[in-house]
Amino acid sequence: MPSPLPAQPSGARRLRLVLEYDGGRFCGFQRQPGQRSVQGELEAGLSALCGHPVATVGAGRTDAGVHALGQVVHFDTTGRIPVERIARALNTALAPELVVRHVEETETSFHARYHAVSRSYSYFIMRRQPSPFQARYTLYEPALREDAAPRIESAARPLLGRHDFQVFSTGGLHGRSPERTVLRAGVVAEGDLLRIDLTADSFLRSMVRVIVGLLLEVGRGRRSPESVRQVLRKQEELGAAT
Amino acid sequence: MPSPLPAQPSGARRLRLVLEYDGGRFCGFQRQPGQRSVQGELEAGLSALCGHPVATVGAGRTDAGVHALGQVVHFDTTGRIPVERIARALNTALAPELVVRHVEETETSFHARYHAVSRSYSYFIMRRQPSPFQARYTLYEPALREDAAPRIESAARPLLGRHDFQVFSTGGLHGRSPERTVLRAGVVAEGDLLRIDLTADSFLRSMVRVIVGLLLEVGRGRRSPESVRQVLRKQEELGAAT
Repeated sequence: MPSPLPAQPSGARRLRLVLEYDGGRFCGFQRQPGQRSVQGELEAGLSALCGHPVATVGAGRTDAGVHALGQVVHFDTTGRIPVERIARALNTALAPELVVRHVEETETSFHARYHAVSRSYSYFIMRRQPSPFQARYTLYEPALREDAAPRIESAARPLLGRHDFQVFSTGGLHGRSPERTVLRAGVVAEGDLLRIDLTADSFLRSMVRVIVGLLLEVGRGRRSPESVRQVLRKQEELGAAT
Repeated sequence: MPSPLPAQPSGARRLRLVLEYDGGRFCGFQRQPGQRSVQGELEAGLSALCGHPVATVGAGRTDAGVHALGQVVHFDTTGRIPVERIARALNTALAPELVVRHVEETETSFHARYHAVSRSYSYFIMRRQPSPFQARYTLYEPALREDAAPRIESAARPLLGRHDFQVFSTGGLHGRSPERTVLRAGVVAEGDLLRIDLTADSFLRSMVRVIVGLLLEVGRGRRSPESVRQVLRKQEELGAAT
Protein backbone atom coordinates (compact mmCIF):
# COMPACT_ATOMS: atom_id res chain seq x y z
CA MET A 1 0.00 0.00 0.00
CA PRO A 2 1.58 3.34 -1.01
CA SER A 3 1.92 5.83 1.83
CA PRO A 4 -0.18 9.01 1.55
CA LEU A 5 2.46 10.84 3.55
CA PRO A 6 5.65 12.68 2.75
CA ALA A 7 8.75 10.55 2.90
CA GLN A 8 10.18 9.97 6.35
CA PRO A 9 13.74 10.80 7.29
CA SER A 10 15.73 7.63 6.61
CA GLY A 11 15.84 5.31 9.60
CA ALA A 12 12.82 6.96 11.19
CA ARG A 13 10.31 4.77 12.98
CA ARG A 14 6.59 5.52 13.08
CA LEU A 15 5.06 5.09 16.53
CA ARG A 16 1.40 4.80 17.52
CA LEU A 17 0.28 6.13 20.91
CA VAL A 18 -3.01 5.75 22.74
CA LEU A 19 -3.83 8.69 25.02
CA GLU A 20 -6.24 9.41 27.85
CA TYR A 21 -6.81 12.99 28.93
CA ASP A 22 -8.97 15.30 30.98
CA GLY A 23 -10.10 17.80 28.35
CA GLY A 24 -11.24 20.25 31.02
CA ARG A 25 -7.60 21.15 31.60
CA PHE A 26 -6.79 21.93 27.96
CA CYS A 27 -7.96 24.34 25.26
CA GLY A 28 -8.60 21.24 23.13
CA PHE A 29 -6.49 18.65 21.35
CA GLN A 30 -5.05 20.90 18.70
CA ARG A 31 -1.83 22.84 19.21
CA GLN A 32 -2.57 26.56 19.67
CA PRO A 33 -0.02 29.28 20.34
CA GLY A 34 -0.16 30.67 23.86
CA GLN A 35 -2.64 28.07 25.05
CA ARG A 36 -2.36 24.75 26.80
CA SER A 37 -3.28 22.04 24.29
CA VAL A 38 -2.99 18.25 24.47
CA GLN A 39 -0.97 18.16 21.29
CA GLY A 40 1.35 20.95 22.42
CA GLU A 41 2.10 19.28 25.74
CA LEU A 42 2.52 15.86 24.15
CA GLU A 43 4.87 17.16 21.46
CA ALA A 44 6.99 19.02 24.00
CA GLY A 45 7.36 15.81 26.00
CA LEU A 46 8.09 13.69 22.91
CA SER A 47 10.60 16.20 21.53
CA ALA A 48 12.53 16.18 24.81
CA LEU A 49 12.46 12.39 24.89
CA CYS A 50 13.40 11.83 21.24
CA GLY A 51 16.03 14.55 21.01
CA HIS A 52 14.47 16.22 17.95
CA PRO A 53 11.29 18.24 17.25
CA VAL A 54 8.31 15.89 17.03
CA ALA A 55 5.05 16.57 15.16
CA THR A 56 2.05 14.39 15.98
CA VAL A 57 -1.13 13.50 14.08
CA GLY A 58 -4.23 12.66 16.11
CA ALA A 59 -7.24 10.56 15.05
CA GLY A 60 -9.58 13.39 16.08
CA ARG A 61 -9.37 16.99 17.21
CA THR A 62 -11.38 17.09 20.40
CA ASP A 63 -12.66 20.46 21.61
CA ALA A 64 -11.99 22.06 24.99
CA GLY A 65 -13.80 20.11 27.69
CA VAL A 66 -13.95 16.89 25.67
CA HIS A 67 -12.12 14.11 27.48
CA ALA A 68 -10.42 11.16 25.82
CA LEU A 69 -10.26 7.51 26.82
CA GLY A 70 -8.46 6.27 23.70
CA GLN A 71 -7.24 9.02 21.39
CA VAL A 72 -4.83 7.55 18.83
CA VAL A 73 -1.82 9.57 17.72
CA HIS A 74 1.13 8.79 15.47
CA PHE A 75 4.52 10.42 15.05
CA ASP A 76 7.89 9.71 13.46
CA THR A 77 11.17 9.63 15.28
CA THR A 78 14.82 8.99 14.55
CA GLY A 79 15.45 8.82 18.31
CA ARG A 80 16.79 5.57 19.70
CA ILE A 81 14.67 5.25 22.84
CA PRO A 82 13.19 1.71 23.10
CA VAL A 83 9.43 1.61 22.49
CA GLU A 84 8.69 -0.11 25.79
CA ARG A 85 10.26 2.77 27.76
CA ILE A 86 8.38 5.62 26.11
CA ALA A 87 5.07 5.43 28.02
CA ARG A 88 6.72 5.38 31.44
CA ALA A 89 9.17 8.15 30.56
CA LEU A 90 6.47 10.36 29.04
CA ASN A 91 4.04 9.81 31.90
CA THR A 92 6.71 10.81 34.38
CA ALA A 93 7.26 14.05 32.45
CA LEU A 94 3.62 14.89 31.61
CA ALA A 95 1.01 16.34 33.98
CA PRO A 96 -1.35 13.69 35.43
CA GLU A 97 -4.27 14.95 33.29
CA LEU A 98 -2.59 13.54 30.17
CA VAL A 99 -1.67 9.86 30.26
CA VAL A 100 -0.05 7.69 27.58
CA ARG A 101 -1.69 4.27 27.83
CA HIS A 102 0.05 2.41 25.07
CA VAL A 103 2.94 2.84 22.61
CA GLU A 104 3.90 0.59 19.74
CA GLU A 105 5.93 0.72 16.57
CA THR A 106 3.70 0.60 13.51
CA GLU A 107 4.06 0.42 9.75
CA THR A 108 5.32 3.64 8.24
CA SER A 109 2.15 3.76 6.13
CA PHE A 110 -0.12 3.93 9.20
CA HIS A 111 -1.99 7.20 9.64
CA ALA A 112 -3.91 7.96 12.86
CA ARG A 113 -6.55 10.05 11.11
CA TYR A 114 -6.95 8.46 7.68
CA HIS A 115 -6.89 4.92 8.98
CA ALA A 116 -9.30 5.37 11.88
CA VAL A 117 -12.27 3.09 11.14
CA SER A 118 -14.62 4.55 13.74
CA ARG A 119 -14.93 7.14 16.49
CA SER A 120 -16.93 6.69 19.69
CA TYR A 121 -18.33 9.38 21.97
CA SER A 122 -20.01 8.97 25.35
CA TYR A 123 -22.00 11.61 27.22
CA PHE A 124 -22.66 11.18 30.94
CA ILE A 125 -25.84 12.70 32.33
CA MET A 126 -27.49 12.65 35.76
CA ARG A 127 -30.92 13.66 37.00
CA ARG A 128 -29.69 14.06 40.56
CA GLN A 129 -26.82 16.29 41.58
CA PRO A 130 -23.50 14.62 40.66
CA SER A 131 -20.96 14.14 43.42
CA PRO A 132 -18.08 16.63 43.47
CA PHE A 133 -15.96 13.85 41.95
CA GLN A 134 -18.31 13.27 39.01
CA ALA A 135 -19.19 16.92 38.44
CA ARG A 136 -16.49 17.60 35.84
CA TYR A 137 -17.45 14.58 33.76
CA THR A 138 -21.21 14.59 34.06
CA LEU A 139 -24.00 16.85 32.85
CA TYR A 140 -26.42 17.64 35.67
CA GLU A 141 -29.86 17.67 34.11
CA PRO A 142 -32.63 17.73 36.76
CA ALA A 143 -35.26 18.27 34.04
CA LEU A 144 -34.65 14.78 32.64
CA ARG A 145 -37.77 12.60 32.73
CA GLU A 146 -37.86 9.38 34.73
CA ASP A 147 -38.29 7.45 31.47
CA ALA A 148 -35.53 9.37 29.69
CA ALA A 149 -33.48 6.24 28.96
CA PRO A 150 -36.09 4.34 26.90
CA ARG A 151 -37.18 7.59 25.20
CA ILE A 152 -33.64 8.41 24.12
CA GLU A 153 -32.96 4.81 23.14
CA SER A 154 -35.98 4.81 20.87
CA ALA A 155 -35.23 8.27 19.47
CA ALA A 156 -31.63 7.30 18.64
CA ARG A 157 -32.43 4.05 16.78
CA PRO A 158 -33.13 5.71 13.36
CA LEU A 159 -29.59 7.18 13.39
CA LEU A 160 -28.11 3.74 12.75
CA GLY A 161 -26.82 3.06 9.27
CA ARG A 162 -25.70 5.29 6.42
CA HIS A 163 -27.46 8.66 6.17
CA ASP A 164 -26.97 12.20 4.97
CA PHE A 165 -26.25 14.03 8.25
CA GLN A 166 -25.71 17.52 6.86
CA VAL A 167 -28.67 18.91 8.79
CA PHE A 168 -26.94 17.85 12.02
CA SER A 169 -23.76 19.69 11.14
CA THR A 170 -22.69 23.31 11.48
CA GLY A 171 -19.67 23.23 9.17
CA GLY A 172 -19.24 23.28 5.42
CA LEU A 173 -18.56 20.06 3.52
CA HIS A 174 -15.65 21.38 1.43
CA GLY A 175 -16.61 19.02 -1.36
CA ARG A 176 -16.78 15.95 0.85
CA SER A 177 -19.76 13.65 1.22
CA PRO A 178 -22.37 14.55 3.87
CA GLU A 179 -22.99 10.84 4.42
CA ARG A 180 -21.75 9.01 7.48
CA THR A 181 -22.40 5.55 8.86
CA VAL A 182 -23.59 5.42 12.47
CA LEU A 183 -22.59 2.08 14.01
CA ARG A 184 -23.95 2.56 17.52
CA ALA A 185 -26.49 5.00 18.95
CA GLY A 186 -27.98 4.13 22.29
CA VAL A 187 -28.22 4.61 26.02
CA VAL A 188 -26.79 2.71 28.96
CA ALA A 189 -28.21 3.36 32.44
CA GLU A 190 -25.63 2.85 35.20
CA GLY A 191 -27.42 3.51 38.47
CA ASP A 192 -28.19 7.24 38.55
CA LEU A 193 -25.99 7.79 35.55
CA LEU A 194 -27.23 7.82 31.96
CA ARG A 195 -24.66 7.32 29.23
CA ILE A 196 -25.41 8.20 25.61
CA ASP A 197 -23.09 6.34 23.24
CA LEU A 198 -22.50 7.29 19.62
CA THR A 199 -20.14 5.55 17.24
CA ALA A 200 -19.71 6.37 13.54
CA ASP A 201 -17.10 5.84 10.85
CA SER A 202 -16.54 9.55 11.30
CA PHE A 203 -18.60 12.58 12.30
CA LEU A 204 -19.31 15.84 10.51
CA ARG A 205 -18.39 19.02 12.36
CA SER A 206 -20.62 19.48 15.46
CA MET A 207 -22.65 16.41 14.47
CA VAL A 208 -22.15 14.62 17.82
CA ARG A 209 -23.11 17.68 19.82
CA VAL A 210 -26.17 18.48 17.75
CA ILE A 211 -27.42 14.89 17.97
CA VAL A 212 -26.85 14.71 21.73
CA GLY A 213 -28.61 18.08 22.18
CA LEU A 214 -31.61 16.72 20.33
CA LEU A 215 -31.61 13.48 22.33
CA LEU A 216 -31.49 15.47 25.57
CA GLU A 217 -34.55 17.40 24.45
CA VAL A 218 -36.26 14.05 23.97
CA GLY A 219 -35.10 13.00 27.45
CA ARG A 220 -36.52 16.21 28.94
CA GLY A 221 -39.85 15.59 27.19
CA ARG A 222 -39.61 18.80 25.15
CA ARG A 223 -39.45 16.80 21.92
CA SER A 224 -41.01 13.51 20.96
CA PRO A 225 -38.90 10.37 20.47
CA GLU A 226 -39.99 10.60 16.82
CA SER A 227 -38.14 13.86 16.26
CA VAL A 228 -34.79 12.37 15.19
CA ARG A 229 -36.55 10.21 12.60
CA GLN A 230 -38.41 13.29 11.37
CA VAL A 231 -35.24 15.34 10.99
CA LEU A 232 -33.54 12.52 9.08
CA ARG A 233 -36.57 12.17 6.78
CA LYS A 234 -36.56 15.91 6.08
CA GLN A 235 -32.87 15.72 5.18
CA GLU A 236 -33.62 12.82 2.83
CA GLU A 237 -36.31 14.84 1.08
CA LEU A 238 -33.94 17.81 0.81
CA GLY A 239 -31.25 15.54 -0.62
CA ALA A 240 -33.67 13.99 -3.12
CA ALA A 241 -34.87 17.46 -4.21
CA THR A 242 -31.40 18.80 -5.06
CA MET B 1 -29.48 15.59 78.40
CA PRO B 2 -28.22 19.14 79.06
CA SER B 3 -26.86 20.86 75.98
CA PRO B 4 -23.10 21.60 76.06
CA LEU B 5 -23.75 24.64 73.89
CA PRO B 6 -24.61 28.27 74.50
CA ALA B 7 -28.31 29.03 74.42
CA GLN B 8 -29.83 29.43 70.99
CA PRO B 9 -31.75 32.49 69.89
CA SER B 10 -35.37 31.77 70.77
CA GLY B 11 -37.24 30.09 67.94
CA ALA B 12 -34.04 28.92 66.30
CA ARG B 13 -33.93 25.50 64.68
CA ARG B 14 -30.83 23.31 64.62
CA LEU B 15 -30.17 21.71 61.24
CA ARG B 16 -27.88 18.83 60.38
CA LEU B 17 -26.24 18.70 56.93
CA VAL B 18 -24.27 15.97 55.20
CA LEU B 19 -21.65 17.26 52.75
CA GLU B 20 -19.54 15.86 49.95
CA TYR B 21 -16.59 17.86 48.67
CA ASP B 22 -13.49 17.76 46.53
CA GLY B 23 -10.84 18.84 49.03
CA GLY B 24 -8.34 19.55 46.27
CA ARG B 25 -10.23 22.74 45.54
CA PHE B 26 -10.16 24.11 49.10
CA CYS B 27 -7.53 25.09 51.66
CA GLY B 28 -9.27 22.63 54.00
CA PHE B 29 -12.55 22.46 55.86
CA GLN B 30 -11.85 25.20 58.36
CA ARG B 31 -12.70 28.84 57.66
CA GLN B 32 -9.51 30.85 56.97
CA PRO B 33 -9.34 34.52 56.08
CA GLY B 34 -8.34 35.18 52.47
CA GLN B 35 -8.52 31.51 51.50
CA ARG B 36 -11.16 29.32 49.95
CA SER B 37 -12.40 26.94 52.65
CA VAL B 38 -15.33 24.52 52.69
CA GLN B 39 -16.71 26.11 55.84
CA GLY B 40 -16.36 29.63 54.48
CA GLU B 41 -18.16 28.83 51.25
CA LEU B 42 -20.87 26.85 53.02
CA GLU B 43 -21.49 29.60 55.58
CA ALA B 44 -21.69 32.27 52.87
CA GLY B 45 -24.32 30.18 51.07
CA LEU B 46 -26.25 29.44 54.25
CA SER B 47 -26.16 33.06 55.41
CA ALA B 48 -27.60 34.25 52.10
CA LEU B 49 -30.28 31.56 52.28
CA CYS B 50 -31.23 32.07 55.92
CA GLY B 51 -31.06 35.86 55.92
CA HIS B 52 -28.70 36.07 58.89
CA PRO B 53 -25.04 35.23 59.54
CA VAL B 54 -24.66 31.47 60.00
CA ALA B 55 -21.87 29.71 61.90
CA THR B 56 -21.37 25.99 61.28
CA VAL B 57 -19.76 23.22 63.32
CA GLY B 58 -18.26 20.26 61.42
CA ALA B 59 -17.66 16.71 62.68
CA GLY B 60 -14.04 16.93 61.54
CA ARG B 61 -11.63 19.50 60.18
CA THR B 62 -10.25 17.92 57.06
CA ASP B 63 -6.96 19.25 55.67
CA ALA B 64 -6.38 20.63 52.18
CA GLY B 65 -6.60 17.82 49.64
CA VAL B 66 -8.73 15.60 51.87
CA HIS B 67 -12.06 14.88 50.17
CA ALA B 68 -15.32 14.17 51.98
CA LEU B 69 -18.08 11.71 51.20
CA GLY B 70 -20.15 12.36 54.33
CA GLN B 71 -18.94 15.27 56.45
CA VAL B 72 -21.60 16.13 59.05
CA VAL B 73 -22.21 19.77 59.96
CA HIS B 74 -24.75 21.49 62.19
CA PHE B 75 -25.91 25.09 62.42
CA ASP B 76 -28.70 27.14 63.97
CA THR B 77 -31.10 29.33 62.06
CA THR B 78 -34.07 31.56 62.76
CA GLY B 79 -34.73 31.68 59.00
CA ARG B 80 -38.04 30.29 57.78
CA ILE B 81 -36.88 28.36 54.72
CA PRO B 82 -38.40 24.84 54.70
CA VAL B 83 -35.87 22.10 55.40
CA GLU B 84 -36.70 20.18 52.23
CA ARG B 85 -35.75 23.16 50.07
CA ILE B 86 -32.35 23.86 51.56
CA ALA B 87 -30.24 21.24 49.75
CA ARG B 88 -31.51 22.19 46.30
CA ALA B 89 -31.19 25.92 46.93
CA LEU B 90 -27.69 25.60 48.38
CA ASN B 91 -26.47 23.30 45.63
CA THR B 92 -27.66 25.77 43.02
CA ALA B 93 -25.65 28.51 44.74
CA LEU B 94 -22.52 26.53 45.61
CA ALA B 95 -19.74 25.49 43.23
CA PRO B 96 -20.04 21.88 42.00
CA GLU B 97 -17.07 20.77 44.11
CA LEU B 98 -19.15 21.19 47.29
CA VAL B 99 -22.44 19.30 47.41
CA VAL B 100 -25.05 19.14 50.19
CA ARG B 101 -26.36 15.59 50.18
CA HIS B 102 -28.87 15.72 53.02
CA VAL B 103 -30.48 18.25 55.37
CA GLU B 104 -32.68 17.55 58.37
CA GLU B 105 -33.91 19.31 61.47
CA THR B 106 -32.37 17.83 64.58
CA GLU B 107 -32.64 18.18 68.35
CA THR B 108 -31.14 21.41 69.61
CA SER B 109 -28.81 19.35 71.79
CA PHE B 110 -27.22 17.64 68.77
CA HIS B 111 -23.57 18.53 68.16
CA ALA B 112 -21.80 17.47 64.95
CA ARG B 113 -18.40 17.12 66.61
CA TYR B 114 -19.16 15.96 70.16
CA HIS B 115 -21.79 13.46 69.08
CA ALA B 116 -19.87 11.86 66.23
CA VAL B 117 -19.44 8.19 67.16
CA SER B 118 -16.84 7.35 64.54
CA ARG B 119 -14.83 8.74 61.64
CA SER B 120 -13.86 6.78 58.52
CA TYR B 121 -10.99 7.51 56.13
CA SER B 122 -10.22 5.79 52.83
CA TYR B 123 -6.99 6.07 50.85
CA PHE B 124 -6.93 5.06 47.18
CA ILE B 125 -3.66 3.72 45.80
CA MET B 126 -2.65 2.30 42.42
CA ARG B 127 0.42 0.45 41.20
CA ARG B 128 -0.23 1.41 37.59
CA GLN B 129 -0.66 4.96 36.37
CA PRO B 130 -4.14 6.25 37.30
CA SER B 131 -6.33 7.58 34.51
CA PRO B 132 -6.53 11.39 34.23
CA PHE B 133 -9.96 11.06 35.87
CA GLN B 134 -8.67 9.15 38.90
CA ALA B 135 -5.41 11.07 39.25
CA ARG B 136 -6.70 13.65 41.74
CA TYR B 137 -8.17 10.99 44.03
CA THR B 138 -5.56 8.27 43.82
CA LEU B 139 -1.97 7.89 44.98
CA TYR B 140 0.21 6.51 42.18
CA GLU B 141 2.65 4.13 43.80
CA PRO B 142 4.54 2.03 41.24
CA ALA B 143 6.83 0.69 43.98
CA LEU B 144 3.94 -1.20 45.58
CA ARG B 145 4.54 -4.95 45.72
CA GLU B 146 2.23 -7.37 43.90
CA ASP B 147 1.21 -8.80 47.27
CA ALA B 148 0.72 -5.37 48.87
CA ALA B 149 -2.93 -6.01 49.74
CA PRO B 150 -2.43 -9.08 51.98
CA ARG B 151 0.71 -7.52 53.50
CA ILE B 152 -1.13 -4.32 54.45
CA GLU B 153 -4.19 -6.26 55.61
CA SER B 154 -2.04 -8.30 57.96
CA ALA B 155 -0.03 -5.29 59.13
CA ALA B 156 -3.19 -3.32 59.92
CA ARG B 157 -4.93 -6.00 61.99
CA PRO B 158 -3.18 -5.18 65.31
CA LEU B 159 -4.55 -1.61 65.11
CA LEU B 160 -8.05 -2.89 65.89
CA GLY B 161 -9.37 -2.20 69.36
CA ARG B 162 -8.43 0.30 72.08
CA HIS B 163 -4.79 1.37 72.18
CA ASP B 164 -2.54 4.23 73.16
CA PHE B 165 -1.82 5.82 69.75
CA GLN B 166 0.38 8.69 70.93
CA VAL B 167 3.39 7.41 68.99
CA PHE B 168 1.33 7.74 65.77
CA SER B 169 0.48 11.37 66.47
CA THR B 170 2.35 14.62 65.90
CA GLY B 171 0.25 16.85 68.12
CA GLY B 172 0.09 17.44 71.86
CA LEU B 173 -2.66 15.79 73.91
CA HIS B 174 -3.70 18.93 75.83
CA GLY B 175 -4.64 16.78 78.81
CA ARG B 176 -6.78 14.40 76.77
CA SER B 177 -6.37 10.65 76.62
CA PRO B 178 -4.01 9.23 73.97
CA GLU B 179 -6.27 6.21 73.68
CA ARG B 180 -8.51 5.65 70.70
CA THR B 181 -10.60 2.71 69.52
CA VAL B 182 -9.98 1.54 65.98
CA LEU B 183 -13.10 -0.13 64.60
CA ARG B 184 -11.90 -0.99 61.11
CA ALA B 185 -8.43 -1.23 59.61
CA GLY B 186 -8.10 -3.10 56.37
CA VAL B 187 -7.68 -3.19 52.62
CA VAL B 188 -10.12 -3.64 49.77
CA ALA B 189 -8.76 -4.44 46.30
CA GLU B 190 -10.98 -3.11 43.49
CA GLY B 191 -9.33 -4.15 40.25
CA ASP B 192 -6.12 -2.13 39.98
CA LEU B 193 -7.17 0.04 42.88
CA LEU B 194 -6.20 -0.60 46.49
CA ARG B 195 -8.27 1.07 49.17
CA ILE B 196 -7.03 1.36 52.74
CA ASP B 197 -9.93 1.89 55.16
CA LEU B 198 -9.55 3.19 58.69
CA THR B 199 -12.38 3.84 61.12
CA ALA B 200 -12.01 4.94 64.74
CA ASP B 201 -14.12 6.61 67.40
CA SER B 202 -11.83 9.56 66.73
CA PHE B 203 -8.26 10.10 65.59
CA LEU B 204 -5.36 11.94 67.22
CA ARG B 205 -3.75 14.68 65.16
CA SER B 206 -1.97 13.20 62.07
CA MET B 207 -2.75 9.69 63.30
CA VAL B 208 -4.46 8.63 60.05
CA ARG B 209 -1.65 9.91 57.88
CA VAL B 210 1.11 8.39 60.00
CA ILE B 211 -0.63 5.00 60.02
CA VAL B 212 -1.24 5.06 56.26
CA GLY B 213 2.38 6.10 55.66
CA LEU B 214 3.54 3.10 57.67
CA LEU B 215 1.15 0.74 55.87
CA LEU B 216 2.43 2.00 52.51
CA GLU B 217 5.98 1.19 53.60
CA VAL B 218 4.75 -2.32 54.32
CA GLY B 219 3.09 -2.42 50.88
CA ARG B 220 6.35 -1.33 49.24
CA GLY B 221 8.26 -4.04 51.09
CA ARG B 222 10.45 -1.54 52.94
CA ARG B 223 8.99 -2.60 56.27
CA SER B 224 7.74 -5.93 57.51
CA PRO B 225 4.02 -6.55 58.11
CA GLU B 226 5.02 -6.95 61.77
CA SER B 227 6.08 -3.33 62.06
CA VAL B 228 2.74 -1.89 63.14
CA ARG B 229 2.45 -4.48 65.91
CA GLN B 230 6.00 -3.64 67.00
CA VAL B 231 5.29 0.08 67.16
CA LEU B 232 2.13 -0.53 69.19
CA ARG B 233 4.02 -2.79 71.58
CA LYS B 234 6.75 -0.19 72.07
CA GLN B 235 4.09 2.40 72.88
CA GLU B 236 2.56 0.00 75.43
CA GLU B 237 5.92 -0.45 77.14
CA LEU B 238 6.43 3.31 77.18
CA GLY B 239 2.98 3.77 78.68
CA ALA B 240 3.61 1.08 81.33
CA ALA B 241 6.98 2.64 82.25
CA THR B 242 5.57 6.10 83.01
